[in-house]
Amino acid sequence: MKLTLDDLHDYVRGAAFLGTGGGGDPYIGRLLLKQEIEDGRHPTIIDPEELDDEARVATAAAMGAPTVMLERFPKIESLEAALETLQKRLGHKFDALIGAEAGGINGTLPLIAGARTGLPVVDADGMGRAFPELQMVTYNIYGLSAAPVVMADDHGDRVVVEAGSNKKVEAYARSVIMAMHGQAQIALYAMTGAEAKRSAVRNTLSMALDIGRAISAARRGNADPVQGLLEHLRARADKRFAAELFTGKIVDLARETRAGFAFGHVRIAGLGPNGGDCEIAFQNENLLAKRDGEIVAMVPDLICIVDGETAEPITTEGLKYGQRVRVIGVSVPPIMRTKEALAVFGPRCFGLDMDFEPIETLLG
Amino acid sequence: MKLTLDDLHDYVRGAAFLGTGGGGDPYIGRLLLKQEIEDGRHPTIIDPEELDDEARVATAAAMGAPTVMLERFPKIESLEAALETLQKRLGHKFDALIGAEAGGINGTLPLIAGARTGLPVVDADGMGRAFPELQMVTYNIYGLSAAPVVMADDHGDRVVVEAGSNKKVEAYARSVIMAMHGQAQIALYAMTGAEAKRSAVRNTLSMALDIGRAISAARRGNADPVQGLLEHLRARADKRFAAELFTGKIVDLARETRAGFAFGHVRIAGLGPNGGDCEIAFQNENLLAKRDGEIVAMVPDLICIVDGETAEPITTEGLKYGQRVRVIGVSVPPIMRTKEALAVFGPRCFGLDMDFEPIETLLG
Repeated sequence: MKLTLDDLHDYVRGAAFLGTGGGGDPYIGRLLLKQEIEDGRHPTIIDPEELDDEARVATAAAMGAPTVMLERFPKIESLEAALETLQKRLGHKFDALIGAEAGGINGTLPLIAGARTGLPVVDADGMGRAFPELQMVTYNIYGLSAAPVVMADDHGDRVVVEAGSNKKVEAYARSVIMAMHGQAQIALYAMTGAEAKRSAVRNTLSMALDIGRAISAARRGNADPVQGLLEHLRARADKRFAAELFTGKIVDLARETRAGFAFGHVRIAGLGPNGGDCEIAFQNENLLAKRDGEIVAMVPDLICIVDGETAEPITTEGLKYGQRVRVIGVSVPPIMRTKEALAVFGPRCFGLDMDFEPIETLLG
Repeated sequence: MKLTLDDLHDYVRGAAFLGTGGGGDPYIGRLLLKQEIEDGRHPTIIDPEELDDEARVATAAAMGAPTVMLERFPKIESLEAALETLQKRLGHKFDALIGAEAGGINGTLPLIAGARTGLPVVDADGMGRAFPELQMVTYNIYGLSAAPVVMADDHGDRVVVEAGSNKKVEAYARSVIMAMHGQAQIALYAMTGAEAKRSAVRNTLSMALDIGRAISAARRGNADPVQGLLEHLRARADKRFAAELFTGKIVDLARETRAGFAFGHVRIAGLGPNGGDCEIAFQNENLLAKRDGEIVAMVPDLICIVDGETAEPITTEGLKYGQRVRVIGVSVPPIMRTKEALAVFGPRCFGLDMDFEPIETLLG
């Protein structure tokens, strides 16, 4: 499967949806990928099943505060340099790239790196969405080591991090990010094809493209794009549960940047006299949705805020007082709901004092 | 030359003197080295001239805040692990070790690593004293690269730093130190024998031992130990200028820990009615000495505060109100006073708005 210029808006819109409010502004990723495709370099996307068990696969990503990336676009040469340094370090070439997160800008970067290096990009990632930390990936959950992590800045500097646990790798890498002025391109989670097939969240790149296409198709057909999106999600082979959780107007918005993260919450008031309200808490990504005080969805299930009319996904930075929005909840696949997975990116990992309950149970 | 148990107090006292107030409490280094020697592992010290031009040499050191090291002694296994990782990274074994700084605890650590690995330790270092940052070494000044720098913590974690300049290596490594809870053992400045001979400050380990011995000898002979020390320094083959700058009582002491450094100043009042005063500013190490308002010595020349009676060196952390102390100034060798050297550890590198003037000129 080749990604074309026509697919770009749809793909990036879908990646933004999977970002569930976080993962960085996908606009940057679109600009960078557009450049590659216009220059004749089309990324090739392959199904995980196409990977040989012995294939050498690695993850490429941008690390840092999304706000910094808006000011200084991720430099693709640095991402390539990180991959090259990791190859040199490991003593072998890579056969394919795989994403760390499907949501936000990191949904696009592996495709850009794939376009430039000619390496195919696996239709899969380690989050099925966006998460704020390096160890919050299924690769970690299912036993792979992030290290060695090569961090490259835009001035030719490299820092290689190895540590006893992926959580400590995250801590060291995060401290280096500060010294690298808030951003680095990184290569990590070198794995085999067999490991990728065992641990990745599958078909999330094609899912992003399909989500974007479903929204576009509904818009073109003068249908309600949120309805079009929900119908598509419910019809998928991976049997996602999807529901519109709320529709209304933003009446309260609190954001605070702390320790490199955007913490906050947004309150949406229903329209009409019996409108009720919906409150969503976020740490970069949307974590918890309450409707009239009752929990209706929680991390790692997807809680996505979209424009009330166009269904365009809105990042937490893009939320504005008075905006008319709709909130969509989507289930995540079983690989992201195991005990092991919830120990790494379940509600308690974000300071929420509750056990995970699936969205379909909460709404059932 | 072998270092024996009898030499230990003298050697460590001399290293503390060369620390000019900084470099960490040498007491820790003495305990650790004593253990090695008692276990039958004596470090061997060789003259730089004994190094083959092609010999593979590396630097081993502790990095971090001295106060943290007092709470958690540097773990020697981690220092060995850092050296091993660096060897693996470079693809060759080392033939000898060389110090980063002669002053303070890092004057002892290469000897401990040498005792454990069986590698000889070169009688030389990169500072001829103590300085607070990785790039403030003659190795950097005379063209060698600190990178790759292997940082090892006490839990098996490793971070390898490479960067476009040694100053940036310092910045990245410093950020990792924070995540490593204030301390790491590091291996860096891998160099050849020829490079070591060209760039190192020579015979600083034997100088530390000689300084300690001169103080001990005077004490045993009921002579004034400061006089004994000055006579020794003046009689050395490397023609050091040495003078007692002041004697008195500490009447003012200001210390502030900021950005991982101990900044401050100490004021010493002369004894008797026409005693005058002496003020010394420090950033970890003593930087500038003024006598009755006139500058009498400045970095990189050595400004050492010692106990008024015993001539025991006092670190900046050890200074106390009311203490009777004497201040000794010593010149550094020409390799530390070139234009290139002063650009890296001259007065302006510590925020002092003045050109370097040698102590012998200031007092001349």
